[in-house]
Amino acid sequence: MDFRDFDRLNRRDIIRGTAMLGAGAAFLQPLPLFAQAGSLADIRKAAAAGKEASIKRIRDWVALPSIAAEDRNMPEGAAYFAELAKDAGFTHVEVVPTDGHPGVFATLDVGAPRTLGLYLMYDVKQYDPAEWSSPPLEGKMVERKNLGMTMVGRGSANHKGPEGTFLAAMHAIRAAGRKLPVNLVLICEGEEEIGSPHFRQLVTKPHILAALQKCDGVFMPTAMQDMEGGATIELGAKGIIELELVASGEKWGRGPKKDVHSSLKAMLDSPAWRLVQALQTLVTPDGNTPAIDGWFENVRKLSDREKAMIRDAIKHTNEAQMKDDLGVTRWIDDLSLEDAMVRLMQEPTVNIEGLVAGYTGPGGKTILPGRAVAKLDLRLVPNQTRAEATQKLRAHLDKRGFNDVEVNISGGYDPTETDENSALIRAEVATYKKLGVRPNLSVRLAGSWPGGTFTQPPVSVPVGRFGLSTGGNAHAPDEYYLIDSTNPKVAGLVDSTMGYVEFLYTLAAIK
Amino acid sequence: MDFRDFDRLNRRDIIRGTAMLGAGAAFLQPLPLFAQAGSLADIRKAAAAGKEASIKRIRDWVALPSIAAEDRNMPEGAAYFAELAKDAGFTHVEVVPTDGHPGVFATLDVGAPRTLGLYLMYDVKQYDPAEWSSPPLEGKMVERKNLGMTMVGRGSANHKGPEGTFLAAMHAIRAAGRKLPVNLVLICEGEEEIGSPHFRQLVTKPHILAALQKCDGVFMPTAMQDMEGGATIELGAKGIIELELVASGEKWGRGPKKDVHSSLKAMLDSPAWRLVQALQTLVTPDGNTPAIDGWFENVRKLSDREKAMIRDAIKHTNEAQMKDDLGVTRWIDDLSLEDAMVRLMQEPTVNIEGLVAGYTGPGGKTILPGRAVAKLDLRLVPNQTRAEATQKLRAHLDKRGFNDVEVNISGGYDPTETDENSALIRAEVATYKKLGVRPNLSVRLAGSWPGGTFTQPPVSVPVGRFGLSTGGNAHAPDEYYLIDSTNPKVAGLVDSTMGYVEFLYTLAAIK
Repeated sequence: MDFRDFDRLNRRDIIRGTAMLGAGAAFLQPLPLFAQAGSLADIRKAAAAGKEASIKRIRDWVALPSIAAEDRNMPEGAAYFAELAKDAGFTHVEVVPTDGHPGVFATLDVGAPRTLGLYLMYDVKQYDPAEWSSPPLEGKMVERKNLGMTMVGRGSANHKGPEGTFLAAMHAIRAAGRKLPVNLVLICEGEEEIGSPHFRQLVTKPHILAALQKCDGVFMPTAMQDMEGGATIELGAKGIIELELVASGEKWGRGPKKDVHSSLKAMLDSPAWRLVQALQTLVTPDGNTPAIDGWFENVRKLSDREKAMIRDAIKHTNEAQMKDDLGVTRWIDDLSLEDAMVRLMQEPTVNIEGLVAGYTGPGGKTILPGRAVAKLDLRLVPNQTRAEATQKLRAHLDKRGFNDVEVNISGGYDPTETDENSALIRAEVATYKKLGVRPNLSVRLAGSWPGGTFTQPPVSVPVGRFGLSTGGNAHAPDEYYLIDSTNPKVAGLVDSTMGYVEFLYTLAAIK
Repeated sequence: MDFRDFDRLNRRDIIRGTAMLGAGAAFLQPLPLFAQAGSLADIRKAAAAGKEASIKRIRDWVALPSIAAEDRNMPEGAAYFAELAKDAGFTHVEVVPTDGHPGVFATLDVGAPRTLGLYLMYDVKQYDPAEWSSPPLEGKMVERKNLGMTMVGRGSANHKGPEGTFLAAMHAIRAAGRKLPVNLVLICEGEEEIGSPHFRQLVTKPHILAALQKCDGVFMPTAMQDMEGGATIELGAKGIIELELVASGEKWGRGPKKDVHSSLKAMLDSPAWRLVQALQTLVTPDGNTPAIDGWFENVRKLSDREKAMIRDAIKHTNEAQMKDDLGVTRWIDDLSLEDAMVRLMQEPTVNIEGLVAGYTGPGGKTILPGRAVAKLDLRLVPNQTRAEATQKLRAHLDKRGFNDVEVNISGGYDPTETDENSALIRAEVATYKKLGVRPNLSVRLAGSWPGGTFTQPPVSVPVGRFGLSTGGNAHAPDEYYLIDSTNPKVAGLVDSTMGYVEFLYTLAAIK
């Protein structure tokens, strides 16, 4: 799920297809006023009483980082989360082995008419303590300007903070002597940060699949608020294929198999030039549009309704500020912001994430490299599929004689879409409105996440992300999650706990 | 001077345009028999007596690495070499400042009719002690299979070993009570490993230039022997321009100035794609021939005499072994070895040394890089010049609208040529023949070195490299230089000392 890389730049709004209003929110009120009264006042009281326990729950979890890429604390992380789920009230909790790292499956059937699915992750991104201003596993409280007191730690925003806040909502409901208004089905993976390679395997285990199919929808607890107090609701996400395109003397049978002296270029072929020549066939000469044979066959253009959403979202955007924040002076093709946002939502892309060949240090080194690699990500839009795109890329290269150029796919997701009229999305909209949070409908996340695993067969249920509060630096040093807000438009821990409570009750009541 | 990178691969013969006969030299005699008798027997005796002092001289020098790229021991290295020159008998010795690191200029006028120029370097390549099996500054003696006892240390082969051996020859002549048969003019630089950026400045100081112009030729002491006992005489070298081609949002005014989330590719231009598109215009679609406008205007094809040299050089080549050593299965365009060698000598090249953009670690990272770099080396042949090539590359890019793509040149040399009928080359041939070493005439070194500084105006004298013995791993760990040979065809320290002695006397006597 790569949308969180973007948090690093604190510009999530753009990628979500909504617009940011710029910094400097006016402080209208001294304290948040989310759901202070009403029928759930007893639960709010319990949530407030449980605040310190809730902070400790998140902090202790941050202290145990599970990192799939490093095979670090994986069984421990699954076992730890299973205990958290039991504590929160799940009646069936099961660590589920996969061919990779284990997941956790949990259910809580309260006999309610509606069942809500939960998608969680227990793994976190790698980190280098030397780059942090506060120790990454300590979850220290750090004041953040114009925001309030935050917990700083690896996983605090992504995703232990929001997930822990959802667990706090369950604790609060129980502490108030109530029973949940909906049944819960939870699936938690430990390989989200490496592209969820065994997630489908997890989800399609017969008893897990059967449980998920009964859900009215699946959501991931996420801190979705922007600094103006709005919250984005994504009606889908682009798909992605991440891959390495590799040209090598080994596979090509031309040029050297290993690096040789560069003077030999005069008598030897060059895998690096081979890569460049293969690469440049993949896009139009301006580098902006995929030119892979048949790439647009299944691409669906945005509907008028979707374009209207974009117009609505950018209404109050400060375009100059947005460009400044991104470090750009022009949108692609010198488009207007609106057209650029349509393009962002609508178009598939072939992006170069990285190029690596030969000598990459300072200065030069006179070698002819035996191998050259381009790291690409290919963003897919409905109705493309990962399988279709993979096959077309291979066929495109083969047709041009690049049979030797390897396509090594490391991960990916299909694009996903959820109907804005589904109960899940209507409950999200209604909850935000009730809490005075402006819901910003977004055509789709321009990033990618494994939501398609739920929307597509065999699960086939709506999927979304939901949650108050905010956080940042998700894949970067000093990752943080808001605990005590000084911004009246953004919810702190207790308010965001109540956000999940309200959501459960709203979903239970929705027609 | 980048030809020594190639030593790392122990395939110098190819780059020199001569051919290798494969490994496994037959051991015909238990000991070398170079110049054991004759008119220089007294000097040989002195050289043998001075062997331990000579080893110590090289070893002590290895212990003081001067590394221009790290600004390490530069004044110290110049001062140290100046002392070595004084000890060897130079009467005028002068540390010469430049805008970069200092050089050393030294002369010894014995009133002889002939004057020989010497080109030396006191700097060495960077090293990582962790990669060495013997400490890089200790100059330990290590047995090498099929070769003998070698000194292992940074700079031992490149170039302190051969240079120290030449100094040993001067010591031996003096110890034998003789005076040198030729006058000497020595110029030593400390920036050879970073592309000799201030060498021209050094050489054109009026008094240095005047001294060099009086030389019959300039030579660099170098261990030139192959395992079959032959030694290559290069009649020139290709030129080179090393540069970075850089595409960036900063210069382009399109795309991001820094890395942003890769999903934004749909609304932002990509400097990495810009680089790929600019790159692919520089060569033919097969990546093998420069396609820069006007590139071949001044390229001189090989003469029949030069082609004959190549035919002669490859006569005994084991082509299969050569391919195997290089890790290749085919020459460019599926050429025969002879045609491939002609191409090696004759053709200019545009080579990709390295590609660096965005994320270069394991796996992927969903970013759109703000900057992309291709490290290129452009080999030049007579009568191209570096200035001409630089201008043509820029004009080529500009003409295609790539005005924003930077060409950052880090160093380079013009191509160089020396007449095989010059006294210098005739003396080299005659010396090798006298010592029973087969001289292999090579059209040119396919690598590059600053020899052009001497052959071109205002110096305009012949230039060459000369020397017995062998060494290897010049820019790699475990660099070595032969001291005691067990291969009867290859000279150890005393014999190669005598090689320089013989060379001086031969040059003095040549008509």
